[in-house]
Amino acid sequence: MEINKVAINHFQDIATNYRTIFFDAFGVLKNHRGVISGIEKTFRFLDEHDIDYYILTNDASRSPEELSYAYISQGIKQLTPDKIISSGMLARDWLKLKVKEGTVAYLGTEQSAKYIEDAGLKTMAAKDLDGNTEDVRCLAFLDDEGFSWTNDLNKVVNFLRNNNVPVIVANTDINYPVSNNDVAVAIGSLSNLVEKVVGKKFIRFGKPDVQMFMFGFEKACKNRIVKKNEILMVGDTLFTDIIGGNKFGIDTALVLSGNTLPKMADIRITSSGIIPNYVCPSILMEEYRQARLRVVN
Amino acid sequence: MEINKVAINHFQDIATNYRTIFFDAFGVLKNHRGVISGIEKTFRFLDEHDIDYYILTNDASRSPEELSYAYISQGIKQLTPDKIISSGMLARDWLKLKVKEGTVAYLGTEQSAKYIEDAGLKTMAAKDLDGNTEDVRCLAFLDDEGFSWTNDLNKVVNFLRNNNVPVIVANTDINYPVSNNDVAVAIGSLSNLVEKVVGKKFIRFGKPDVQMFMFGFEKACKNRIVKKNEILMVGDTLFTDIIGGNKFGIDTALVLSGNTLPKMADIRITSSGIIPNYVCPSILMEEYRQARLRVVN
Amino acid sequence: MEINKVAINHFQDIATNYRTIFFDAFGVLKNHRGVISGIEKTFRFLDEHDIDYYILTNDASRSPEELSYAYISQGIKQLTPDKIISSGMLARDWLKLKVKEGTVAYLGTEQSAKYIEDAGLKTMAAKDLDGNTEDVRCLAFLDDEGFSWTNDLNKVVNFLRNNNVPVIVANTDINYPVSNNDVAVAIGSLSNLVEKVVGKKFIRFGKPDVQMFMFGFEKACKNRIVKKNEILMVGDTLFTDIIGGNKFGIDTALVLSGNTLPKMADIRITSSGIIPNYVCPSILMEEYRQARLRVVN
Amino acid sequence: MEINKVAINHFQDIATNYRTIFFDAFGVLKNHRGVISGIEKTFRFLDEHDIDYYILTNDASRSPEELSYAYISQGIKQLTPDKIISSGMLARDWLKLKVKEGTVAYLGTEQSAKYIEDAGLKTMAAKDLDGNTEDVRCLAFLDDEGFSWTNDLNKVVNFLRNNNVPVIVANTDINYPVSNNDVAVAIGSLSNLVEKVVGKKFIRFGKPDVQMFMFGFEKACKNRIVKKNEILMVGDTLFTDIIGGNKFGIDTALVLSGNTLPKMADIRITSSGIIPNYVCPSILMEEYRQARLRVVN
Repeated sequence: MEINKVAINHFQDIATNYRTIFFDAFGVLKNHRGVISGIEKTFRFLDEHDIDYYILTNDASRSPEELSYAYISQGIKQLTPDKIISSGMLARDWLKLKVKEGTVAYLGTEQSAKYIEDAGLKTMAAKDLDGNTEDVRCLAFLDDEGFSWTNDLNKVVNFLRNNNVPVIVANTDINYPVSNNDVAVAIGSLSNLVEKVVGKKFIRFGKPDVQMFMFGFEKACKNRIVKKNEILMVGDTLFTDIIGGNKFGIDTALVLSGNTLPKMADIRITSSGIIPNYVCPSILMEEYRQARLRVVN
Repeated sequence: MEINKVAINHFQDIATNYRTIFFDAFGVLKNHRGVISGIEKTFRFLDEHDIDYYILTNDASRSPEELSYAYISQGIKQLTPDKIISSGMLARDWLKLKVKEGTVAYLGTEQSAKYIEDAGLKTMAAKDLDGNTEDVRCLAFLDDEGFSWTNDLNKVVNFLRNNNVPVIVANTDINYPVSNNDVAVAIGSLSNLVEKVVGKKFIRFGKPDVQMFMFGFEKACKNRIVKKNEILMVGDTLFTDIIGGNKFGIDTALVLSGNTLPKMADIRITSSGIIPNYVCPSILMEEYRQARLRVVN
Repeated sequence: MEINKVAINHFQDIATNYRTIFFDAFGVLKNHRGVISGIEKTFRFLDEHDIDYYILTNDASRSPEELSYAYISQGIKQLTPDKIISSGMLARDWLKLKVKEGTVAYLGTEQSAKYIEDAGLKTMAAKDLDGNTEDVRCLAFLDDEGFSWTNDLNKVVNFLRNNNVPVIVANTDINYPVSNNDVAVAIGSLSNLVEKVVGKKFIRFGKPDVQMFMFGFEKACKNRIVKKNEILMVGDTLFTDIIGGNKFGIDTALVLSGNTLPKMADIRITSSGIIPNYVCPSILMEEYRQARLRVVN
Repeated sequence: MEINKVAINHFQDIATNYRTIFFDAFGVLKNHRGVISGIEKTFRFLDEHDIDYYILTNDASRSPEELSYAYISQGIKQLTPDKIISSGMLARDWLKLKVKEGTVAYLGTEQSAKYIEDAGLKTMAAKDLDGNTEDVRCLAFLDDEGFSWTNDLNKVVNFLRNNNVPVIVANTDINYPVSNNDVAVAIGSLSNLVEKVVGKKFIRFGKPDVQMFMFGFEKACKNRIVKKNEILMVGDTLFTDIIGGNKFGIDTALVLSGNTLPKMADIRITSSGIIPNYVCPSILMEEYRQARLRVVN
């Protein structure tokens, strides 16, 4: 059932057709070992060609400052906090608009709760939901770490059965890679479990939802007025980065340096019907990638 | 399990807190008999108070002009085509951005195909998909009428099994009312059936997706700069109008003149966890509604 | 991610380990052109080795007599009606137990309605559901042919919204092959659509549900007392034949002559976690198959 | 939308129409405080009328002996272990038939692992899945207690990504009551989470699946030959007890002493389309229930 054989492009040949590029983080700029070496050349290239860029990441575990620091500390000075768009930021802005005052209970690390504080609200860790919850106006799923699943998921379930407050999920991913082979269950999975048990409808932020792209688009336009057809989304996952970008109406490039294995790209595109405009091995500059390949082989 | 007893508000008391109002059409402005009588006073009231308004409707069966005509012909001269935002318009804009040239095959009436033509593309009814389909770049689910389900759904299934093109669905509703008692299966249901059979991922436009609200927001801002917290979404359905508005970050009012029966409002809000800012009997001005109630009783 | 490389077996080597074999029909004994030539030798072999056999088929479009005739007319005299177990027979027995009297409305051909008559009940085609439905005690989805989808699905939806009667689905398949390339939407898909629109729970009969295997087991034991570990299920589809047999507790063999392509067997087994005891190219006797391969190549 | 107003029956009037009765445990015989007082009279009544009975319970946390002891210690001497049919027993029998030798890894208490030992197999707690797993032939979800969700769910996910073994779930419930107000997340929910993350198909045992009823039917027939139309299933949950019994082809009675609140019975039956033959307040003998009601009011 091979319908259209996918053509492989070099990233730098594509990039120059756009004025702004959105990058997914994991599988594109990073992997489980950290920032992928060589991508600093890519950002130098983009700067030289006056191409603007932003990182769109399904992550509410850390602040934009912390997320940025991972790149800057590896010598990619361009990726300052203002270049980062996290799903946590969408949650923060939503809380500002819709909750306004009171306390937000949360599942996640203390770092992740920073997004709630930034919205001017008080925080309560889920473990305290068996105490006085009168001031709790909202519940937020932020991160899979920082709490006991066994105890706190049950507390959250019973709180929601007895209190009708909106629930937000600041990262829809169901798992994330922690090593070459292994993954960890992400907060998106835990929120799905609770949603099914309590039978209520949660509000989710993150790719593939277009709200994330809209947020990025607005941010990009504050820096430089750009049209949708001048933007490229680059990601390693068909079901989040590519379908989200396609739906938002911008061009998309699938890279094969993460979730989608090179030998599976054709079959995944055909069987899913999610069709990127381009497929690239990675975002590494060609000369560098060749050199690396020679070393590896 | 009654958690919070819902308070009932009068629409005019709420409306004056906002500068722009989004209305759902069916169950709010219309029912199966046509435009609800008395709503002309509401629009007069909004005009007097300098409140702007737009209709956000999951509909790709008719053009904005035709949708507008239904109101204008009933004396509501304010609801000109530029006040209408239909999911068909989102589809049209998407086709312009992502398809650009060639032919779009469609399921729907000839009227609905107008949205494809407006994007500068050629059209092919699904019944012709057993002929030469070389130029077909996209398939669009537009409306449940205008074709034979038995014949054309099978043609669409087999076309999609053999051709990898993007598929868009311009109305996600699964049914719509056709009389006091009866409904009809909507194009959203037919698209779900085909999506499951072919195993591909379709792109959908319409509430509750925030893309529709974003489109409305952009349109509203061209007329009058407005902030999200100055906008109210008014609808009769928790799972489309209210959750969509909530997620977009604007205030929401549930009216009990359509899908959500007055006696069920409490239980539906509690069991779904979809919480509107307000609940109103309808958008009718109080004096008028009272008069009508007296006549009815 | 290749975990265990699948070993390929010859069917006759496996078959002799069992006293009774259950066969799926489509993709095993038949394809879109009809009965697969050469399988008569397989049934001769089974008879010589005193191995009993039954056909378990998700089909309510035709009676066991008609299903049997397709084989007998091709010279496979052994496949008499008593060797056939169809999901229609489960529906028939269920109607006898649970409905007892009155009328059953149905979607399907007149032939398929025979299963209702065999249960001693009156029938009403769905097209008549807009008339007097007082005596209707149950609704049955039997076959995708014999009615207008456009008209009759809407009639069924509105009947079920206004009448609380049990609904049965006598074939859960979502599509079936009609040629080398093409499929047709099956009654299972249409029942899923209606179930979602009316929000009620239907009762389904057919593989992978164990009820079908239990029915086959009981029938087999009337002929010859057999234990579960003496039965083999042979099928071409992991998600119906193999997982159903596995769950029922009998051994399973996947054949590669239908739904599961030889080059995909490994990846499908690994990615689904549905693990047959054996994988065979087909049920054809080895010598015959070799001869055929020589002719084809 | 009240379609048919439900008639309320007294349990003893119904019971005498049957030769064998299947009871759900939780919400029928027990609640969160333990065995419901007064049901001993019901079992005396059944004995006097020579009506046989069995308990069908979605539970793999304890052995039939332990489950029985809860009743016997409250004076209901009739409910001996041979009267108990648990989903754990289905899992045990399945392991005997399909796994045969080696080790079964499990999530649950040590007590729950007894079902694996009873099948003649070795056990490994999920926490040890990061060690040598060469002998592991199957993974079993047994109970929500006895392990750390945070650590062991991740171990199970990664084990299943790297090893293709069958996975069974011995209790499909998504939650269970722990007090008048509160519930706990059940092992069924945890298995759903893992199934979605690894993308594989698990095998589930328990109501509403008919395999449980078949198991009960076979057991009942060993004691006393009975036809399906002589059996009644009694339960408090439409989506497990009632739809399962209906599908198996036996009569069903919904009791309002558990999951289904009296004031919601009508609406739940109508909106779900799951129709019991009878509705009873509870299984308590009428005279006793009246006395209790007088005390309560």
